[in-house]
Amino acid sequence: MTIPDDHPRRDSLLSRQRIVDAQAAGLLADSALIAHGRGEAFDYLIGERTTDSAKAAQREALNRLFHAKSPVISLNGNSTVLAGEEAICLAALTKSNIEVNIFYRTDDRMRLLLADIQKKRNKVIETPPSPKIAIKTWREMVESVRIYGENPDAEIPGLHGPRASCSSLGIFQADVVMVPLEDGDRCEALVAMGKQVLVIDLNPLSRTSMRASVTIVDEVSRAIRQMVRMALHGPSHDLSDWNNRTILEDALSEIATAVKQLQR
Amino acid sequence: MTIPDDHPRRDSLLSRQRIVDAQAAGLLADSALIAHGRGEAFDYLIGERTTDSAKAAQREALNRLFHAKSPVISLNGNSTVLAGEEAICLAALTKSNIEVNIFYRTDDRMRLLLADIQKKRNKVIETPPSPKIAIKTWREMVESVRIYGENPDAEIPGLHGPRASCSSLGIFQADVVMVPLEDGDRCEALVAMGKQVLVIDLNPLSRTSMRASVTIVDEVSRAIRQMVRMALHGPSHDLSDWNNRTILEDALSEIATAVKQLQR
Repeated sequence: MTIPDDHPRRDSLLSRQRIVDAQAAGLLADSALIAHGRGEAFDYLIGERTTDSAKAAQREALNRLFHAKSPVISLNGNSTVLAGEEAICLAALTKSNIEVNIFYRTDDRMRLLLADIQKKRNKVIETPPSPKIAIKTWREMVESVRIYGENPDAEIPGLHGPRASCSSLGIFQADVVMVPLEDGDRCEALVAMGKQVLVIDLNPLSRTSMRASVTIVDEVSRAIRQMVRMALHGPSHDLSDWNNRTILEDALSEIATAVKQLQR
Repeated sequence: MTIPDDHPRRDSLLSRQRIVDAQAAGLLADSALIAHGRGEAFDYLIGERTTDSAKAAQREALNRLFHAKSPVISLNGNSTVLAGEEAICLAALTKSNIEVNIFYRTDDRMRLLLADIQKKRNKVIETPPSPKIAIKTWREMVESVRIYGENPDAEIPGLHGPRASCSSLGIFQADVVMVPLEDGDRCEALVAMGKQVLVIDLNPLSRTSMRASVTIVDEVSRAIRQMVRMALHGPSHDLSDWNNRTILEDALSEIATAVKQLQR
């Protein structure tokens, strides 16, 4: 499919194509396509842009990654496909590790996703995200990001079956976990473990959005790309009181306002 | 998957499961799942219920089917899977024919969908939708519904490739076409042929919604089920002036209001 460079919905259509291609290649569960469609609709309603409240949440999430003892970015199928490169950059800049962790775990999908993220890492390592970072330094930063997920050897308490699996050196021991596009049950279980849970979810009313420590209501690749830009400047403030409820209300107001503007 | 009878989102979860199962069985294109997900999000925002403006549009669409010379209900993959039985009932009550017509046409999918609709017809024919209709009468009504789609022998002007295909005795010659879940290009091309085009689309801002003669902003199975109930009483009014633009504005207002209520 060719999409003109100036198509107003180019990013959205490219993301859709990536998801369709990845599903055809066996990287994603069927439910991944439905979840992507739901996201598309919410993104459409907020105007396919990063809102002010989402920016505030990105800043907060970023600071928590910077201040964490052992931060982990957990990638599921859709976030690996849509924002794997951005996530590796962000991990390198915030000294986080990555865990590929999918809800409907199968060996085939895990193998394909781990190969995909390695390929993306090999691409990212070639180009620093800013001319201020020397190529050699950047290589070291990216190389220091561990990628877990191949051999899950721990379980998230309160969950059952394959969805409970995680890595003892990854999610299990992390104090701060960023989980773009997380399932509601899993988000709750991670919060119950005492972790700070940072999520990216276009539906401000989802259980994941409601339970997370910090909710970024934004499209996953746009959000992480923006966080990478912010991360180049380091942490922007000390950890502050954070009212996630207010952020979700702001996000809903923004959707309501956007819908009203669409009426004109 | 078992969903409790009293689950507040039971219908939505059952529909999702139907779509996932049908995709696994080869009845649907990948894009069908994404489209379903988009629909889910909009349905969520309108509260998964039929709004007053949707009811008005259903009544109008129904009257147009009743007053048509040669009405056809066109079913794509998702609408066959989600609302095939309801569509057959509606066709029987309004003396419409059915055409199975998919945008990304492959012989395999067409064969599976035609088998599915026949199976649904065999089920529907057993039980009249109202005790006022005798079983024998109902059998005749359902048997008189022709199902086209197997041998497309005509083309919709202005479209190219498989998506232009249709049946000369079905969509091609119809004066009124009901096309739940139609693609924007196809909707436009059908309007350009001078047909009245009745669509069901959860996104009031889609090109399909904007171009249709009558747009029902509602979930497809809920909408057609409601139209079947209405159809048992026959046409409810003479054909009236119909301002589809107003209906779309009402639908958007309803979404905006629903989002505001969700904030409380």
